[in-house]
Amino acid sequence: MSNTIGTTLRLTTFGESHGTAIGGILDGCPSGIPLDLGAIDADLVRRRTGAPRGESDTVVWLSGLSDDDMPRTLGTPIAFTLANEQTRPDDYDALRHLCRPGHADYTYLQRYGLRDHRGGGRASARETAVRVVAGAIAKQLLSGVTFQTTVTTPAPTTPDDTLGGIVECTIRGVAAGIGNPLFSKLGAALAHAMMTIPSAIGFEMGAGFAAAAMKGSEYIDRWTPDATTVTNHCGGIQGGISNGMPITFRVAFHPVVTIPQPVECLAEDGTLTTVDIGGRHDRYHVPRAAVVVEAMAALVVADQVLISKRGA
Amino acid sequence: MSNTIGTTLRLTTFGESHGTAIGGILDGCPSGIPLDLGAIDADLVRRRTGAPRGESDTVVWLSGLSDDDMPRTLGTPIAFTLANEQTRPDDYDALRHLCRPGHADYTYLQRYGLRDHRGGGRASARETAVRVVAGAIAKQLLSGVTFQTTVTTPAPTTPDDTLGGIVECTIRGVAAGIGNPLFSKLGAALAHAMMTIPSAIGFEMGAGFAAAAMKGSEYIDRWTPDATTVTNHCGGIQGGISNGMPITFRVAFHPVVTIPQPVECLAEDGTLTTVDIGGRHDRYHVPRAAVVVEAMAALVVADQVLISKRGA
Amino acid sequence: MSNTIGTTLRLTTFGESHGTAIGGILDGCPSGIPLDLGAIDADLVRRRTGAPRGESDTVVWLSGLSDDDMPRTLGTPIAFTLANEQTRPDDYDALRHLCRPGHADYTYLQRYGLRDHRGGGRASARETAVRVVAGAIAKQLLSGVTFQTTVTTPAPTTPDDTLGGIVECTIRGVAAGIGNPLFSKLGAALAHAMMTIPSAIGFEMGAGFAAAAMKGSEYIDRWTPDATTVTNHCGGIQGGISNGMPITFRVAFHPVVTIPQPVECLAEDGTLTTVDIGGRHDRYHVPRAAVVVEAMAALVVADQVLISKRGA
Amino acid sequence: MSNTIGTTLRLTTFGESHGTAIGGILDGCPSGIPLDLGAIDADLVRRRTGAPRGESDTVVWLSGLSDDDMPRTLGTPIAFTLANEQTRPDDYDALRHLCRPGHADYTYLQRYGLRDHRGGGRASARETAVRVVAGAIAKQLLSGVTFQTTVTTPAPTTPDDTLGGIVECTIRGVAAGIGNPLFSKLGAALAHAMMTIPSAIGFEMGAGFAAAAMKGSEYIDRWTPDATTVTNHCGGIQGGISNGMPITFRVAFHPVVTIPQPVECLAEDGTLTTVDIGGRHDRYHVPRAAVVVEAMAALVVADQVLISKRGA
Repeated sequence: MSNTIGTTLRLTTFGESHGTAIGGILDGCPSGIPLDLGAIDADLVRRRTGAPRGESDTVVWLSGLSDDDMPRTLGTPIAFTLANEQTRPDDYDALRHLCRPGHADYTYLQRYGLRDHRGGGRASARETAVRVVAGAIAKQLLSGVTFQTTVTTPAPTTPDDTLGGIVECTIRGVAAGIGNPLFSKLGAALAHAMMTIPSAIGFEMGAGFAAAAMKGSEYIDRWTPDATTVTNHCGGIQGGISNGMPITFRVAFHPVVTIPQPVECLAEDGTLTTVDIGGRHDRYHVPRAAVVVEAMAALVVADQVLISKRGA
Repeated sequence: MSNTIGTTLRLTTFGESHGTAIGGILDGCPSGIPLDLGAIDADLVRRRTGAPRGESDTVVWLSGLSDDDMPRTLGTPIAFTLANEQTRPDDYDALRHLCRPGHADYTYLQRYGLRDHRGGGRASARETAVRVVAGAIAKQLLSGVTFQTTVTTPAPTTPDDTLGGIVECTIRGVAAGIGNPLFSKLGAALAHAMMTIPSAIGFEMGAGFAAAAMKGSEYIDRWTPDATTVTNHCGGIQGGISNGMPITFRVAFHPVVTIPQPVECLAEDGTLTTVDIGGRHDRYHVPRAAVVVEAMAALVVADQVLISKRGA
Repeated sequence: MSNTIGTTLRLTTFGESHGTAIGGILDGCPSGIPLDLGAIDADLVRRRTGAPRGESDTVVWLSGLSDDDMPRTLGTPIAFTLANEQTRPDDYDALRHLCRPGHADYTYLQRYGLRDHRGGGRASARETAVRVVAGAIAKQLLSGVTFQTTVTTPAPTTPDDTLGGIVECTIRGVAAGIGNPLFSKLGAALAHAMMTIPSAIGFEMGAGFAAAAMKGSEYIDRWTPDATTVTNHCGGIQGGISNGMPITFRVAFHPVVTIPQPVECLAEDGTLTTVDIGGRHDRYHVPRAAVVVEAMAALVVADQVLISKRGA
Repeated sequence: MSNTIGTTLRLTTFGESHGTAIGGILDGCPSGIPLDLGAIDADLVRRRTGAPRGESDTVVWLSGLSDDDMPRTLGTPIAFTLANEQTRPDDYDALRHLCRPGHADYTYLQRYGLRDHRGGGRASARETAVRVVAGAIAKQLLSGVTFQTTVTTPAPTTPDDTLGGIVECTIRGVAAGIGNPLFSKLGAALAHAMMTIPSAIGFEMGAGFAAAAMKGSEYIDRWTPDATTVTNHCGGIQGGISNGMPITFRVAFHPVVTIPQPVECLAEDGTLTTVDIGGRHDRYHVPRAAVVVEAMAALVVADQVLISKRGA
C-alpha cells in the first residue's frame, strides 16, 4: 500500500511529476467540519517559496465538500488535483540510461526493472504538495491544536553548494490519552510518517539521542500537582500515548543530492560517465520541508485522535 | 491494529505480563522453510541474560510447523506461546491508585479510563519475548542475510542508577531492489518498527543526524563500477529501496524509568506521594534490547522482501 | 474503509452524484500493460444505454498511464474522473425532510445524523460508472479471461411499473489454483463484491440454492482424465480456489425502488405524506447492472490472481 | 490475509486439523465486558452434536480476560486454544497422491504446489470451532441482540447418503443506523462471512432471489408511523445500513462431499482410481452449520456496530 497512509484518516496520493496532474483522496474525515480553503493555499505558498519550478498550485476540489461559501466536509472522500505546469521532460534525456549518485535511479531500476527518468516520476518531491493539502485539512480537523516548526540549521554560506538541516516540530494542544500502545504507538506513527518525506534520514522525539547518555534520575519527567511535568524529556508521549504536554520531535534531512557540479553517473555496463545534471532543482530545501513535516504530523495526530475516540 | 505489525508477513502478539501466557501468530510465512528451533531459543537466551525476572522461556509451538525432526513451515499461521512464570502481581498493590513518573501509567489511564497496575499489562517489556521468537523465524526466512548489533554506550559506572544507550544495527546481504517508494519506504518501516520497542526515543539511518550538517558534495555516495558505493552515508537505502550496500541504522533508548530511589507519584486528586518502587526491574536494559532490534529489523526486511517479490 | 475495495488491486472511489465529478484511483496495477481505452468507453456505453440521465461519461485520465498512442500502465496509481452533467439538485427539494420507502434515506439519517437528499449523494447508482472504468481496466489485466453475462429475467410487460432480475455471469479462462482458503475465498470475495452493487439482494455460485436439495452423489462433480469435471455444480471453485472450470454465479437484484406512483414518505415526527417522486429514474435497471457485475467480477479475479501469484 | 476477518473486531485463526491444537485471537474487543464462559461452551456443544469425531472442545483461555469468577474483557487480544484429540492422520494414507472429487484437494495442489492430505489441514471444518468461540464472545458484546437460526431443509430420508440444506437466520435487536455504504455494506459483509463457511454456496437476504420477480410496488416495504415497516422484503438493510427491523438472510449449503460410496479419484498422471474414502465424516452437517452461521453473523454485526459507533 505504498500510496496510502493512515488507518482511520487515510491519504492516497497519485500522479507523476511530469504527467497531467497530481492529487489525492483524503478519506475518513468526519462530516460537518468547516474548511478555510485560504489556509490550505497559504500552506502551499509556504511549500513553494524559493522553489525553482514555478507552479501555481491551484487546488481543484472534486468531491467531499459542500458548495457553501465556507465549504464543509460531507464525510465522504475529499478528492482534489493540482495541475502540473511547465513540465519539461526533455531536460532529462541525457539521463535516460544513467543512474545518478545519491538518487533513487539505481534502486528503482533494481526494484521495478524500469524507471521513469523524467524528473523522478512518483519519487519527485512534487508529490509533497498533495501531502501539504491533506495535512492542511487535517490541521483544521484538530481544533485547538497548533503546529510550530523551526529549522535549526543555518542556511548555506557557499551559494553553489547544497545543504541539509533539521526541522524541529512542537505540537501543542493535544489532550492526554491520544495514541496507542504496542505497534501503533504515536511516536512510531510520527517516525514512520516523517521518514516517508524525501531526504529524511533521522527522527528523534523529546530528548532523543541525548537521552541515551542520561541517567534515569535525570531523564524522568517529574510530576507537578496539575498533572503536567517539570521537564519534557519524553517529548509528550509515554508508552505510545500523549500525556498532555507539548509533543516535540526533530527530523534530520540530508542535503539535496542534485549538486551544481559534474558528478559520475553509472551506466548498466558499469561505465562511469561524468555529467552536469540539468533540471530545476533546489539548493536548500529544508525550510520548505518544514510545512511538509507539519502536514504529515497533522495527518498522524488527526488519525490517532479519531482512533482514540473509538474507545478501543 | 495496535497488536499487529507487517503487511505480507504479519505478527500479532497477545498476553498480559502477569497472565497465564504470552504468545503470537506469525502469518504469511512461505511454506517449506526449515526452521532451526535452537537458533530461536538462542535469541531468547540473549534477550533474558541479565534480566531480573527469571523466566525459562520455553516456546510451545501450536501450529504452522511440520512435525519432522527439523520442522518446516507449512505456509499456515505459526502460533506459539511462552508461559508466564513467577508472576507476583501483589508486588504492585501500593501503586494501584498512583501514576509513576516516567511510566505510561497516566497516559493509559487517560486513554482507556482504567489500567492494569500489575507490571504493565500489555505495556510490559515481557511482550518483547514474542517479538524475539517471531524475529528469529524471520531471520531464517532471509537466506544469506545477517544482522549485527553493537551497543555503542558504555555500561553504567554507578551501580545504583540506570542508563540508556544506542544500538547500532548493520544488515548485510539484502539484495538491491528491496523496499518501496512513498509511504512504504524501507527506512520508514524500520523507523516505525524500532520506535515500537519500549524505551526507544530516536532513529537514524546511515549518516543520520550528522548528514544534516554535510554539504551535498560530501554526502553523496560515489559509484564504483561494480555498482557499490565508496561511502555509505545513505545507509543502504535510496528512495525507500535497498541499493545492495549494508543497511545501517541506530536506535536511541532512554534510561530505564524505574529507578532505585524514591520517586514522587501522582494520585488522581493531584497529591504527590513519594514511593520506593518495588517490582523486579532492570538497571541497564540496552544490551538486551539489541536482540529485539534485530528481531524487529528481520520482521521488516522479510516483509519487504515478500512484498517486493510480488513485482508490484 | 467503505470507499475502497480489494487487497492487492485496490479501487477507491469518490464523488457525490450531484457534485462536480466522480472518479477513482485504481492502485496496484502491474506496470507495462497496454490499455485499449476504447474498450473502457464501450463498457461505459453499455452501462448508460437506456438510462434516464444523459451523461457523456468522458473519462479524464489523470495519472498512471504513459502518453503513448496505446497507453501503458506505469505501475503507479491510475486516477481518473468523470464529470457530472445535468445535475438538477432542485428536483429533490420536496424530499428534504422526508424518507422515501424502499430507499436508504432513513438508514443514512440514522447512521450519520444527516443525509444528502439530492440524488442520493454517494449512494447513487451514478457511482457505478467508476466501477465500470476500473473493471474494464481489470479485464485487460486478465489476458485470456472472458466475462459473459446474461439477464435471466424478462423485461417488464407493464410499462408503468418497475422490475428486478437476475444477472448470470460466466468467467472463462481462469487457471486452476487462483484464490485463497478461509476468509479470502474466491467465492466469498465475489459474493462480497456483488452485494455492494446497488439493489443486489442475493448471490449464488454453481448450483447455488438448488444444491441444498441435492444428494451428495448427485452434487459431486466427477473427474475426467484431463482434470476437468463432467458437471460444474461447484461453479468452478472448490475450497475457495478455482479448479480451472468456468466460474459461474448469479446475482439477484430487487426492483427499482423509485416507482412511478405516489408513495407514502415518513417525516421525522412520524407523519406519513404521499408524494409523487420526481427525479430521473430507471424503470428496469438490471440489463445495465450486468456490466457492473462484470466489472466487479474482473476486479475480484484480478486481485486474487495478483495475490495468488505471490506464492503465499 | 486469509486467516483474518473483520475490521475493528478482528478474528485470526490458526491450527491444522491434525496438529496439536487450533485456536484464535479475537482483537478489538472493548474492555470491561463480562463474559459468560458457559454460554461459549454451550455453542461448542451445539456445533459438535452429532459429529463423527469426538472432541471435548475445552477452551484454554490464554489472555485478554480478567481472572474474576465472571471474567471481564481487558480490551487486549483474547487468545484461546482448543486441543486436537484423536487425530488419526494414518487414515488418509491411501489418498496421499489422489485428488478426491468434490473436495479442495486438486485446487490446493494447484494453488500451493503441495497439500496436506491429512484431514484437510486448514481446510477442515474443524477450524469452525474457533469461529464458534469467537462468535459466542461477539454475541455477548451485543447486548439486546438475539440470533435465531432455522434449518429449512428436512433431514435425509436415505441413511446412506448425504444432504445439503438451508440455514435461515434472523437477527433481532440491531438498532437502525448500523452498517456502511458502498464497499462495506452490512449485507455485503454478511455475504462475505457466510460464504467463507465450508460448503456454503449461496446467500440471500430479505426476499432474496424471489425479489427478482417482484414488481417495485410489491417489493417496497411501506412505512408505519413508528418507523417500522409493514413488510420486510429488504431484510432489515437498506443501502448497506440497518433500518431497525429484524435482519434476515438465508445461506445455502451443498451436501457433504465425502459420500459413503466408492468414488473416482484423480492421480497426477490423469489416472482415475476408484476409492472407498475412510475418515470420520458427517452425513448431514447443516444442523451443525447453524451455530457457525450465528457465530459469523455475530462477528460481522459486532464489527459493524463498533465501526458505526466511531461516527465516521
